[in-house]
Amino acid sequence: MSRVLYDLCGIDDELRFSPYCWRVKLALAHKGLEVETRAWNFTDKQALAFADHDKVPVLVDGDETVTDSFEILRYLDRAYPDTPSLLGDPAAEARALYIKGHVERVMAPAIMRTIIMDLINAIHPKDRSYFRETREKRFGCRLEEFHSPAKGLSQLDAALEPLRGVLAQSDFIDGEAPGAGDYLVFGNFMWARSVSNADLVSNADPVYAWLERMLDLHGGMGREALRISDISGAYSQE
Amino acid sequence: MSRVLYDLCGIDDELRFSPYCWRVKLALAHKGLEVETRAWNFTDKQALAFADHDKVPVLVDGDETVTDSFEILRYLDRAYPDTPSLLGDPAAEARALYIKGHVERVMAPAIMRTIIMDLINAIHPKDRSYFRETREKRFGCRLEEFHSPAKGLSQLDAALEPLRGVLAQSDFIDGEAPGAGDYLVFGNFMWARSVSNADLVSNADPVYAWLERMLDLHGGMGREALRISDISGAYSQE
Repeated sequence: MSRVLYDLCGIDDELRFSPYCWRVKLALAHKGLEVETRAWNFTDKQALAFADHDKVPVLVDGDETVTDSFEILRYLDRAYPDTPSLLGDPAAEARALYIKGHVERVMAPAIMRTIIMDLINAIHPKDRSYFRETREKRFGCRLEEFHSPAKGLSQLDAALEPLRGVLAQSDFIDGEAPGAGDYLVFGNFMWARSVSNADLVSNADPVYAWLERMLDLHGGMGREALRISDISGAYSQE
Repeated sequence: MSRVLYDLCGIDDELRFSPYCWRVKLALAHKGLEVETRAWNFTDKQALAFADHDKVPVLVDGDETVTDSFEILRYLDRAYPDTPSLLGDPAAEARALYIKGHVERVMAPAIMRTIIMDLINAIHPKDRSYFRETREKRFGCRLEEFHSPAKGLSQLDAALEPLRGVLAQSDFIDGEAPGAGDYLVFGNFMWARSVSNADLVSNADPVYAWLERMLDLHGGMGREALRISDISGAYSQE
């Protein structure tokens, strides 16, 4: 049976930075499921028409096509009940939505403010005007005005407080071992790490040690992923 | 078997405003467990010496004495396995710690900034200098300087984003029915509601409808609890 994940790429086909796709790739590894990832660009809407969707991740698992990262986690738990659980029981799954809400509505905007000028540089040239138009409409200002690492880092520092509270008691958000709670948050750090060299977290912060643990998971898949700094001349392609 | 909860009170023995005690009272009701609450003041340290502790909640359940609100939730799930669960499986419990961290480190400071001058007014006169000294030391400034409803309400608005994300999908933080996730957040709203008339949430906000549902739970125990506005002349006792 074939299993294919459409995965956002940037200036290099192997530069994969979508936080939502990272959630899914980590979730598949968590379950020990192999996957073939297929590089996709923001503007390749036609390539996803078969799924009646216009964003990644899109997972094609044999005869099943599933869109939306959280729906894919739900699907994987349902389709592979004998593999390690991602979301857990109904209360656990509901609380994962609180973490997801915090990540997407508070943490991601803080990181976005910090790295957005690196991000646009890492996006494939053919996607840049699409990205700029959609994001400037969303933010209500030019990317250059939205960009504010000082403000972003300060917001991120505050946004990491719940995670620090957890790490005072356990190694992972989901307890003694990582799970969907961890992947939801870590996906956004993989996003930043892929496109930017910005130091988002001080090495004295307990979050730093958690990030190191997350980078080591599943054969070091996070640590080994291609970064913008691995691409020769990447900063001169604008 | 007797079950006693030491519960913080203010200028009236029946004014019970501790967010941590509210968690426990809601948790006991969730499990259908009766409890006798005992009014306690911040400075009655001697009354808790038997528990080798100096803060409430303290639960005395027959021969068991348990301190710390989260430990009490854990204890109740362990001691009463045949009643509705509060924390759930290990992953669910771990994710509840993320919510707890968010509530205590982000939401509570925002509410505190908004209501602190009402709070000091609601505290028993004999406790006020203790409260002022410990909090001014914690905040690093006078209560009057820390007090900033405009700043607090703006921080609270941002802090409610994860909850709004959840409420777009379900009625309660824990899903279709309330659980520990809901009580952890709602305890802080009971704290504010008990001591202040401040409108913390617009009635157009989905959080408002959730608050209304929470106030109705368990026979309307939140809605029926004594508020500062129910106490004649409360604002002239300073």
